[in-house]
Amino acid sequence: MSVVQAASSLQLCRIMRPDDANIVGNVHGGTILKMIEEAGCIVGTRHCNTQDGDRCMAALVRVEKTEFLFPVFIGEVAHVTAEITYTSTHSLEVQVQVMSENILTGVKKLANKAALWYVPCSLKNVDKIMDVPPIKYASVEQEELGRKRYGAQKMERQETKARIEDMVPPPSNPGQHTVGFSQSSLIHLVGPSDCTIHNYVHGGVTMKLMDEVAGIVAARHCSTNIVTASVDAINFHRKIIKGCVVTVTGRLTFASNKSMEIEVFVDASSLMEAGKEKYRAVSAFFTYISLDKANKALPVPPLKIDGEEEKRRFEEGNARYLQSKAKRLAEKERQE
Amino acid sequence: MSVVQAASSLQLCRIMRPDDANIVGNVHGGTILKMIEEAGCIVGTRHCNTQDGDRCMAALVRVEKTEFLFPVFIGEVAHVTAEITYTSTHSLEVQVQVMSENILTGVKKLANKAALWYVPCSLKNVDKIMDVPPIKYASVEQEELGRKRYGAQKMERQETKARIEDMVPPPSNPGQHTVGFSQSSLIHLVGPSDCTIHNYVHGGVTMKLMDEVAGIVAARHCSTNIVTASVDAINFHRKIIKGCVVTVTGRLTFASNKSMEIEVFVDASSLMEAGKEKYRAVSAFFTYISLDKANKALPVPPLKIDGEEEKRRFEEGNARYLQSKAKRLAEKERQE
Amino acid sequence: MSVVQAASSLQLCRIMRPDDANIVGNVHGGTILKMIEEAGCIVGTRHCNTQDGDRCMAALVRVEKTEFLFPVFIGEVAHVTAEITYTSTHSLEVQVQVMSENILTGVKKLANKAALWYVPCSLKNVDKIMDVPPIKYASVEQEELGRKRYGAQKMERQETKARIEDMVPPPSNPGQHTVGFSQSSLIHLVGPSDCTIHNYVHGGVTMKLMDEVAGIVAARHCSTNIVTASVDAINFHRKIIKGCVVTVTGRLTFASNKSMEIEVFVDASSLMEAGKEKYRAVSAFFTYISLDKANKALPVPPLKIDGEEEKRRFEEGNARYLQSKAKRLAEKERQE
Repeated sequence: MSVVQAASSLQLCRIMRPDDANIVGNVHGGTILKMIEEAGCIVGTRHCNTQDGDRCMAALVRVEKTEFLFPVFIGEVAHVTAEITYTSTHSLEVQVQVMSENILTGVKKLANKAALWYVPCSLKNVDKIMDVPPIKYASVEQEELGRKRYGAQKMERQETKARIEDMVPPPSNPGQHTVGFSQSSLIHLVGPSDCTIHNYVHGGVTMKLMDEVAGIVAARHCSTNIVTASVDAINFHRKIIKGCVVTVTGRLTFASNKSMEIEVFVDASSLMEAGKEKYRAVSAFFTYISLDKANKALPVPPLKIDGEEEKRRFEEGNARYLQSKAKRLAEKERQE
Repeated sequence: MSVVQAASSLQLCRIMRPDDANIVGNVHGGTILKMIEEAGCIVGTRHCNTQDGDRCMAALVRVEKTEFLFPVFIGEVAHVTAEITYTSTHSLEVQVQVMSENILTGVKKLANKAALWYVPCSLKNVDKIMDVPPIKYASVEQEELGRKRYGAQKMERQETKARIEDMVPPPSNPGQHTVGFSQSSLIHLVGPSDCTIHNYVHGGVTMKLMDEVAGIVAARHCSTNIVTASVDAINFHRKIIKGCVVTVTGRLTFASNKSMEIEVFVDASSLMEAGKEKYRAVSAFFTYISLDKANKALPVPPLKIDGEEEKRRFEEGNARYLQSKAKRLAEKERQE
Repeated sequence: MSVVQAASSLQLCRIMRPDDANIVGNVHGGTILKMIEEAGCIVGTRHCNTQDGDRCMAALVRVEKTEFLFPVFIGEVAHVTAEITYTSTHSLEVQVQVMSENILTGVKKLANKAALWYVPCSLKNVDKIMDVPPIKYASVEQEELGRKRYGAQKMERQETKARIEDMVPPPSNPGQHTVGFSQSSLIHLVGPSDCTIHNYVHGGVTMKLMDEVAGIVAARHCSTNIVTASVDAINFHRKIIKGCVVTVTGRLTFASNKSMEIEVFVDASSLMEAGKEKYRAVSAFFTYISLDKANKALPVPPLKIDGEEEKRRFEEGNARYLQSKAKRLAEKERQE
């Protein structure tokens, strides 16, 4: 059991530096997501190579909805703990927890909890999915709960196929607080340090770029200090290879009086192979809140909606907002 | 003399790493430009602080036209030598030379030569330009030549004000080899490591972003390995402060059968101050060539021009191309 | 005990990326040294803040001689374990161990062991050294051994004052395999991410720069793939503050038929305060070996010595070489 434990859990930590944070000192949600994914990738890859057969790499296929509970600051140490909590035949679940530690005061806070799903891809043939060695569970209940989570995410992944919706470029002189006003795009040329040893982009790198764009969209809308509050479940539909250009675009879909929902699309295209089409690799919803200088929530300016498309997206966003609010309330009641 | 020498010249070197280069191993022109500017900034700042009065920082205001003579590769050591070659009352010229050294074979090549102009800004009040301590010249002729370069660049800077031309977003389904097809934009949130100690973006950081976008435009047009051949004179009209978002956009203006000219605009805007307008900070023309696997020049696909605007820009680009070709020929003849 | 344990030990790990390594894939010794120091700084700072009084930061004052036992490669996970092993009134010793893990094969190797000494500097007044809370020892013997190490390093630090010897620039056309031929310098402008939260350069950042220069010197001498074999004890005489320029210079002092000894000097100077002198912040000896493609040791070309100074340094290097060889032999015998 202790051997299995050793192979299936991991701790990593790092001091947060100025480059990890915004100018007010809040560590970017993207930095946290990248660390979470690095831990998951190590523990997943290590576990899947404890068997005979092709060497393989754990590729991220899904991150469950993630809440940012407490902001992390420059100078604090982020501790990331990852553990394999479920294995199916071809995939595994890693649960990750991020604690921030102020090494000057000794105060520790739970900053983040996440669940990630990986599949092992053969290094010889990246399209070949390998078997996952089973883990041992502490109890039958634990295994049963894992099986339920596995079933739920599988169903959801099949339902939500990548929306191939095109991003419409915003009008040339958009008014303040409209969708077009804050819509933002970046392009990034995938470099060696973004990639795993079989030359595919780390899921964490993609999530960091997504958070970067979402943050700019939110700041443009509010003109205040903003932080990531949560990220909806992210499905990684297609892999991105070294040498690609990724285009990451974010736009506001919904704003309540205290939060903003930003939809982010990641499109990848090869620079070298002209024939190959641009493809949608990932899409997700990020929720941001606006903070004053004492880190208290500020009201968010209302989003000005224009046209049928924007209206539909706003209503869908509102439904997600109400649903997640109801879920939080239910959990709170259950705990009391 | 030797003391002046020590304060006014500098050597820096660094091994080129995978992240400095494209996937074929060619170091990005932007990496070279960033190193050149770092050396210039150090030597300029150091020199301007050899006098009494406010402490100050040398701010880049102009880079003369720069040719990339030989590509540099991963694993090579780039040696950057910077020397102050002229001082006026409020500005100074730094000439920089980049040698690439293959430390395994000992082969050295002159990769780049550049001339940069800086002005010293007081740390207390960034809008106050300080006096520049005079340097000693080896000869009267040397001083006279410097004065001529100073006059020439001053005139050119006054002539070429920043064009405030707006970037029109490309059509939604542009055909291959049109201007819209390869037009690209990135946004970048200015972070601590992008800035000097008085929180303004290093000119070299801006040039690196510009080269990154220009490279993506060129690669999208050619679908081959491309490298920076030259950069036209760049004037830095306005400073960019920490916390800004910069939008860097590149579009093809002209293509000969062997080269592409890409116009790059840098617009900056504050995220926090909603009232403040987006402003044009820098603009420049980059010239790229396409290379095969043996680093030999490949033909460039013709650029498909549409509309009066694109036609005018193409003709202007063609004029610049013919002028620089004539200049190269004249220099060659003079040397023979 | 378990509480003390928790506060005084730490594990961090990270996947090795292309930029951490040379072009053959060997992770730079400097990357390892930087991780070691990060772990030491976290564990030291955390421990010294478990008491009342000013908040403080553990500043590195000395690294004991460090041997690189096995090379680490791109794609491997480096696990760094740090533990406080001795505390005096004003300083503490951290022992660090680096294991490399190949997550594809499961193979783990001990790559490195190091011992670092820190003193806690008050954040309010960086020149005020705080008291160090005592740790509990597993046994009286353990404490006694720690006291001996403490005494030994204290004596050595007092003996070896920073040599203020000036670096003579090499002759303009040095012959191959002379000292001047491979002598190298780099300069680095200290940025925010190089610094602790009280704006002093992390010792690990300095060591990484030193290793980078030493590696260039070694590669120039051998024209082969080279790796760090060991680093002699390093004393950090003076702190380096944000905004400084550091000049790091390396030159060969000695070469046996299998190894090269490179002396590295770090000089810091403020760009802004012209009056302030450049000062010697750190100096150390790095030992490098030359490897063939199968990672086997290659013979090193003899070093051509010229003049009394170089002869003296060569003889001193030879003495260090013989002493460390004798020490290794003695240890080996003791183990048998």
